[in-house]
Amino acid sequence: MSNSGPILNFEGIKKVKGIKGKDILNIAVNENIYISSICAGRGSCAKCRVIIKKGEENLSPLTNLEKTYLSKEELEQGYRLACYTKVIGDGEILIYIPPESRAEPQKMLISGIQVKVKLNPVVKKYFLKLPKATLEDMRQDWERICDVIKENYGLKDLSISYEALINLPNVIRESQWCITVVVRDNKEVLWIEKGDTTARLFGFAIDVGTTKLAGYLVDLNTGEVLASTSYPNPQATYGGDVASRVAFAMKDQKNLSLLNKLVIDATNEMIMELCEKAKVKPEEIYEISVAGNTAMHHIYFGINPKYIGLSPYLPTIGQGISIKAKELGIKVNKEAYTYGLPNIAGFVGADAVADILASGIHKSDELSLLIDIGTNTEIVLGNKDRLVSCSTPAGPAIEGGHIKYGMRAEIGAIEHVWIDPETHEAGYKVIGDVKPRGICGSAIIDTVAHLYKANIIDSNGTFRSNLNSKRIKRDTANTEYVIAWADETAINRDITFTAKDVREIQLVKAAIRTGVNAVMDYMKVTPKDIKRLYLAGGFGTYVDPQSARTIGMYPDIPLERVRFVGNAAGAGAKAALISKEIREEAEEVRKKIEYLELSIYPKFLEIFMKATYLPFKEDLGFPI
Amino acid sequence: MSNSGPILNFEGIKKVKGIKGKDILNIAVNENIYISSICAGRGSCAKCRVIIKKGEENLSPLTNLEKTYLSKEELEQGYRLACYTKVIGDGEILIYIPPESRAEPQKMLISGIQVKVKLNPVVKKYFLKLPKATLEDMRQDWERICDVIKENYGLKDLSISYEALINLPNVIRESQWCITVVVRDNKEVLWIEKGDTTARLFGFAIDVGTTKLAGYLVDLNTGEVLASTSYPNPQATYGGDVASRVAFAMKDQKNLSLLNKLVIDATNEMIMELCEKAKVKPEEIYEISVAGNTAMHHIYFGINPKYIGLSPYLPTIGQGISIKAKELGIKVNKEAYTYGLPNIAGFVGADAVADILASGIHKSDELSLLIDIGTNTEIVLGNKDRLVSCSTPAGPAIEGGHIKYGMRAEIGAIEHVWIDPETHEAGYKVIGDVKPRGICGSAIIDTVAHLYKANIIDSNGTFRSNLNSKRIKRDTANTEYVIAWADETAINRDITFTAKDVREIQLVKAAIRTGVNAVMDYMKVTPKDIKRLYLAGGFGTYVDPQSARTIGMYPDIPLERVRFVGNAAGAGAKAALISKEIREEAEEVRKKIEYLELSIYPKFLEIFMKATYLPFKEDLGFPI
Ligand code: FES
Ligand code: FES
Repeated sequence: MSNSGPILNFEGIKKVKGIKGKDILNIAVNENIYISSICAGRGSCAKCRVIIKKGEENLSPLTNLEKTYLSKEELEQGYRLACYTKVIGDGEILIYIPPESRAEPQKMLISGIQVKVKLNPVVKKYFLKLPKATLEDMRQDWERICDVIKENYGLKDLSISYEALINLPNVIRESQWCITVVVRDNKEVLWIEKGDTTARLFGFAIDVGTTKLAGYLVDLNTGEVLASTSYPNPQATYGGDVASRVAFAMKDQKNLSLLNKLVIDATNEMIMELCEKAKVKPEEIYEISVAGNTAMHHIYFGINPKYIGLSPYLPTIGQGISIKAKELGIKVNKEAYTYGLPNIAGFVGADAVADILASGIHKSDELSLLIDIGTNTEIVLGNKDRLVSCSTPAGPAIEGGHIKYGMRAEIGAIEHVWIDPETHEAGYKVIGDVKPRGICGSAIIDTVAHLYKANIIDSNGTFRSNLNSKRIKRDTANTEYVIAWADETAINRDITFTAKDVREIQLVKAAIRTGVNAVMDYMKVTPKDIKRLYLAGGFGTYVDPQSARTIGMYPDIPLERVRFVGNAAGAGAKAALISKEIREEAEEVRKKIEYLELSIYPKFLEIFMKATYLPFKEDLGFPI
Repeated sequence: MSNSGPILNFEGIKKVKGIKGKDILNIAVNENIYISSICAGRGSCAKCRVIIKKGEENLSPLTNLEKTYLSKEELEQGYRLACYTKVIGDGEILIYIPPESRAEPQKMLISGIQVKVKLNPVVKKYFLKLPKATLEDMRQDWERICDVIKENYGLKDLSISYEALINLPNVIRESQWCITVVVRDNKEVLWIEKGDTTARLFGFAIDVGTTKLAGYLVDLNTGEVLASTSYPNPQATYGGDVASRVAFAMKDQKNLSLLNKLVIDATNEMIMELCEKAKVKPEEIYEISVAGNTAMHHIYFGINPKYIGLSPYLPTIGQGISIKAKELGIKVNKEAYTYGLPNIAGFVGADAVADILASGIHKSDELSLLIDIGTNTEIVLGNKDRLVSCSTPAGPAIEGGHIKYGMRAEIGAIEHVWIDPETHEAGYKVIGDVKPRGICGSAIIDTVAHLYKANIIDSNGTFRSNLNSKRIKRDTANTEYVIAWADETAINRDITFTAKDVREIQLVKAAIRTGVNAVMDYMKVTPKDIKRLYLAGGFGTYVDPQSARTIGMYPDIPLERVRFVGNAAGAGAKAALISKEIREEAEEVRKKIEYLELSIYPKFLEIFMKATYLPFKEDLGFPI
């Protein structure tokens, strides 16, 4: 390790070289040092807490958001959020990762920053010194450029964008015949600039989530994310989940236009914000890459998602598309393209393609199962020879919907629950270490798993009637288990989990398990054949895999085979922005993968019925 | 000949089969029956006079413009203008071509309608019956289309335009899965329509002349021109000729935008007019083709023509370009392209490429010389092995500019002049057979030739002082020859030709002859090697080749080797609209042709000096 430059000493773990401008989370992840993170460094989960013991002068100053997320005492103790804290100076920084921030070993967060991608963006810049036009060398402007670019860089048969063409005569002469051309895909000259601007080449990647937009400004010369931001998806007002959003868009062409405009406007705002942050001009952005589920993709590109919502649930286009950003109203370089990652099916979108790329199952010899858990859950089974996918509407319970005290995974949500099988007493952990307001998806799964393991509910999901615990409250309408007593909570009410909540989760897990078993049945494999289980998506990343297995969400697969894929859509969008090969890989995955429509799968109902049991009808011998 | 359908009996010439909807001029030209025409059937020259002796009930009714162009007596005698008169009914029509309308044999008008082009437009329509989407056949909309079009028509790797994509899901379902796709260049699906619309496929060709725009609405299924129109080029207000137009555009980006807007607006008006006439919707036009000189081309596409006007006089782009019509503001199908024919050099444009294609010299074994005479004159020498071009600014005299009684070739212009060498008396012929108002280019050349042949001027262009004729008026300032006496004219003044006028024409012909001799010198050929001389362009079509040779505009080439190429730009635009092969040929011509810059040609001044003499310094033995 060189002596100059910043050093990050992760106390008790290892010393690593720091990189100025990068945040601690980013550096740690790249060094395989785990720090808790749910939002993958987007600054919204407040989980990446670290304590700076020395060298704070080499770090970016405390931000207002950190002041909000961290308590006074914590701030005094030197707490920072790792993803907000950038290395800015040379010298050693001593960082302590407190126990609450140590990622549990099985939670291998594979977020975008960890996927290694060979830098090879679809747009490139070339500096050209043109021979000056004279009466002895009367090549036309464009021919002159073509000749030099062919000679110096071997590029042939280029076309030129309209805006570049009309600017061409002035640009080459005002720059004394020294120009930089921006070439896309070795085919089209998008833009021509005066002088040597090769150092400045930028792209924008966006993960269009149903509830959240995450945007990344990327330096295409280095692949570095220069700035990132996340916005709520402004479409949420018109439908919180995909189905209601699609229903709204279907009603009227105007509704579609409205949803499209909202997300495009938000994109433009994000671009403005990031450009300002990183001192980049929007017109220096030459490529945009978009990943999201199929419905979000279609609305983003102004394609009616109507038929995704109607049987047979088809996307209009599956393959990756490149549309001029100006056609979409995105304000970047006038001739930049917007690339949409491919979709597999109406409910298996680019986000699932990104999961596959991130997990690498499409290149692996081992048979792997991938489950991206969400209100719509995508399931992929296969290896490098064959891939089968399906999707299943798991419903909103996974995000806290339809659950009495359910809430999203935000500050104040109970995120983990455990129940003592002897005493039936509960323990829990709250996001942000504040008083709880409710329980989020991961804790909901924990609760059902622990109620079952503690024998409080049976395999039908019914509360046993013979139990006597103050935690179990019964009235005529419902039975419920108290997770947190009123005085421990921020809402001054008992936070409970009801018999009805249990049934909701039984249906969710039945839906998911049906998909899993259907693809297994279709491919004629047993749990023993599955060498890897990838839990993917925002939810999959922080669900306790043991709890999920206990309730039978997936088959009997040893926990050491479980891996986590964070929310891969953002990583996919970034990877596709900086790598043509990733685009090709995505396209290959799309072409290769089979899609199984569950609703017409012959054994669908049979599997579903069995899957409602805890953990699974034929798996009662299953190790819990 | 079949008995049903219309028959056109050209009295004393031959009987031919008529085609309903076509005009008499068109039919005659296709049958090699010559009827006078300067405007190539655009309805502006009033030269295509014919007398209908029988069967007028089978013809379209007399138009208002014909009533303007023809006198009362003529109308009573059955005069019509052939290009206005369409065959509409069955039965025989007896047509007499009066002597004034019989094209002189050497005036082989090769207008667009005569160039035979294999029909193979760049856009084509395909009708597809798609298998309906079901849960058993879940191919995405676009994939489904690709599969069927590949299976039925062998087209692969198609892309889809943005507007077509966003309309796709609704169109295919609302049409019960029966659609027509519009494909460009076997590559891009431009548009998708409901049901079978293959019968309706249209294109628009425009010849962007410096003074006139000629537009043609073409049925791309048949290659037929459905309707045509011509407008004055509205840019003329800002500069009558190319040089002044370019000078205006150079001054300010706003000027360029203004000129561009004027021509685009006119294009839109033409399209509206023609569509209305032919009952075609503008959105059924899927391709536009544009030909014009390089400056007009650049302004049309919004490219600054500044550097065409400044040494080394370079176009920005030479190769044929395809730009979306919407980028230019042309209101046709939203995804249609506008194709611009290739340019060779700043002053050798697509109009010259069209000349070459029309003459066929690029495919001929014979060495041919082509001269497109105009205020800027293009010269091409060569054959299928080699082509050399140059251009020379001949000045406005050719269009009547800087000539005392000069005028454009319009009604009232003297178009031919002859002088009796004995009596020195003059005869002349006026366009429209009215009283003359002035003399146009062809008569100007005649006048100089006849003054020289009649020994009134010497080879220096000087009026001989020893002549005594009332036609020669001398005053202290000038000497002039009276072509028409005041009482014969519509202006009540003598129409004369002055010594200064002679000098103007000496300079014009010197410029042209310098170009001709430079390319001959460069290619090391003598007049004897030249097997064909093509006189091209609006002017070249009606100049008397003998007069032109007499003054030495071109070398001693026997008159039987002379051929005429009409204004080929319109024909070129139409041919490129209906034929991919023509576009390829044009591109090959562009790539192959050499351009000789006269101003730096070593012998330029030497040749020019000699060329000012009548007919040419070293050619005094030349047969006149
Ligand atoms: S990782 Fe820092 S706040 Fe989520
Ligand atoms: S040919 Fe008919 S008016 Fe010119």
